Amino acid sequence: VTEPNPQAQYVLGVDIGGTKLSTVLATRAGDIVHKVRRPTDANLGPASGVARLIEMLHETIRAHGEDLDHGQIGGIGVACGSPMDAERGVILGPPNLPSWNPVPIVEILEREFGLATRLENDANAGALAEWLFGAGRGRRHVVYLTMGTGIGGGLVLDGRLYRGANGNAGEIGHMRVVDRGGPLCGCGKHGCLEAFCSGPSIARRTRKALAGEPDSHAAPHMWAQIREALCGDLEQVTAEHLFDGARAGDPLALRLVDETAHYMGIALANVIQAFNPEVIVLGTIATAQGDFFLDRVRRVVRDETWPLMSEIVEIVPSPLGSRVGDYAAISVLLQETYKEASC
Amino acid sequence: VTEPNPQAQYVLGVDIGGTKLSTVLATRAGDIVHKVRRPTDANLGPASGVARLIEMLHETIRAHGEDLDHGQIGGIGVACGSPMDAERGVILGPPNLPSWNPVPIVEILEREFGLATRLENDANAGALAEWLFGAGRGRRHVVYLTMGTGIGGGLVLDGRLYRGANGNAGEIGHMRVVDRGGPLCGCGKHGCLEAFCSGPSIARRTRKALAGEPDSHAAPHMWAQIREALCGDLEQVTAEHLFDGARAGDPLALRLVDETAHYMGIALANVIQAFNPEVIVLGTIATAQGDFFLDRVRRVVRDETWPLMSEIVEIVPSPLGSRVGDYAAISVLLQETYKEASC
Repeated sequence: VTEPNPQAQYVLGVDIGGTKLSTVLATRAGDIVHKVRRPTDANLGPASGVARLIEMLHETIRAHGEDLDHGQIGGIGVACGSPMDAERGVILGPPNLPSWNPVPIVEILEREFGLATRLENDANAGALAEWLFGAGRGRRHVVYLTMGTGIGGGLVLDGRLYRGANGNAGEIGHMRVVDRGGPLCGCGKHGCLEAFCSGPSIARRTRKALAGEPDSHAAPHMWAQIREALCGDLEQVTAEHLFDGARAGDPLALRLVDETAHYMGIALANVIQAFNPEVIVLGTIATAQGDFFLDRVRRVVRDETWPLMSEIVEIVPSPLGSRVGDYAAISVLLQETYKEASC
Repeated sequence: VTEPNPQAQYVLGVDIGGTKLSTVLATRAGDIVHKVRRPTDANLGPASGVARLIEMLHETIRAHGEDLDHGQIGGIGVACGSPMDAERGVILGPPNLPSWNPVPIVEILEREFGLATRLENDANAGALAEWLFGAGRGRRHVVYLTMGTGIGGGLVLDGRLYRGANGNAGEIGHMRVVDRGGPLCGCGKHGCLEAFCSGPSIARRTRKALAGEPDSHAAPHMWAQIREALCGDLEQVTAEHLFDGARAGDPLALRLVDETAHYMGIALANVIQAFNPEVIVLGTIATAQGDFFLDRVRRVVRDETWPLMSEIVEIVPSPLGSRVGDYAAISVLLQETYKEASC
């Protein structure tokens, strides 16, 4: 079986992370019927992890009751970190699971369950989830950006996932936002959006600014908070501390939040001039901070894009939030049904 | 007749510019059989211009000989400057033809000739031309950038023209390439790629640099050239003078060419990280200057993109060159045949 069954009532989703695995059974309409979560135990290697996944999938199917046979399940969608060969369905050792290289997960699951299986990277799967079940519902042009440990991106263009020439499109987080130089990014380049606006990058910029202004006058609320909660240990400062300080009116924190919104805003403006999307969905930090952060980003975007493009694009926090992983996995499979319908 | 006839042997193309109009008869394979050119005489207004176009099209058809009937012509493709409503086929007063607002060119030509007619803006039509007949032949992901008076862009993604939510995608020339500020662009924004790398922008940067270093030591070849050809009149300096000076080894000119390549390179690197294309085709200045300029751009791109993307993308001058307008017009119509074939 290599083609998903578009008549089936249910689909299975598999989310493979560095610390946890999860499997879900959902209806085609996106109602999560059952979910199983287990630790990945990455140190035990891929064979053990894959065996656990298979167990979890059997358990997920069984849990729905005696009467569910495979004819009622349309297929399995799998979301995992890159690098991967999505077309061949092979995981190629993502940073959080380096020993999973190679793992032909599609072949393995198709053989075990006799169900069509599809693999996609997390960011692409997240874009599909927002398109089918979140802020991109009913739109044809959706840009999705995570804003957590890294800034991953996925693109739905003209009503289908856009992968690019060799599956690497959508790396918005690694577009340069300064003319020259800039901080070193985890990817090895300098000056990437991610090197300014990911969670760890925001924390690093905050630590640096605090270290440069060590008296309490510049950042009274933040220093009070650090004294109390972190015993003055700057190494423990996170992006959340920065946003808390800014909400409390701390001038240094506000300046750093504005700076973060500036970099995010000019990157999104470039994305808008290039892709002319209907909606940009931002996850994680943007979801947690909401309009306090996004209104600042929207102001920069308004100043930096042509009105005929900025007027039609919405910049919104992910409504799926922490549930995005579940929807992402099933969307990897469900996209095919939608794609066929629109062609 | 609103559907092109994919069986017909010939197609017609119309290129509407601010100073000239041209019409071509071509085979579906792209052989230009006959071409007519006339001045636009924009001052006479759109009614006069459209009447002239209709005359030219009749002349183009007749010129092929007695035996050509409309059943042998698949339709008419029209290329013109933006803004426009491409879907409805209406020209909306582009900067070089402000009085052509509105001109429902598709309706007019369909009524006159009984042939399916399609309208597209110059940059999109150029991208289609490079995809079907130029450097993008046989590829599915093609980015096309003009590099003349302005920097227009067109995108063929997944084997079809990508227009975005309201037809404005591909404005690569108006992506910001500096963190803040930057020169004022013709579009009203600051710091756009076009404000550094269009022909007039390169000339402006050159004039400014020469004015700042008025003695002949900094730019010996350029000053000699300006003295001879322009009688020292800096206002007359063009991008071509800069490239001539750089080829002659002038140190200031070389620095400015490198700077131009830097801005073009970081913009293209951002395009590559976002779109993961197979080929980027650059027109006009890049076509004229060839590898002397493009090798510098390629070096910047190599330093600024992930190898797995930069290794598969070619950055090439437009092989169609000044003939791109003819191919662009017919490609506006021909894209439909190809799109259907790939679906």
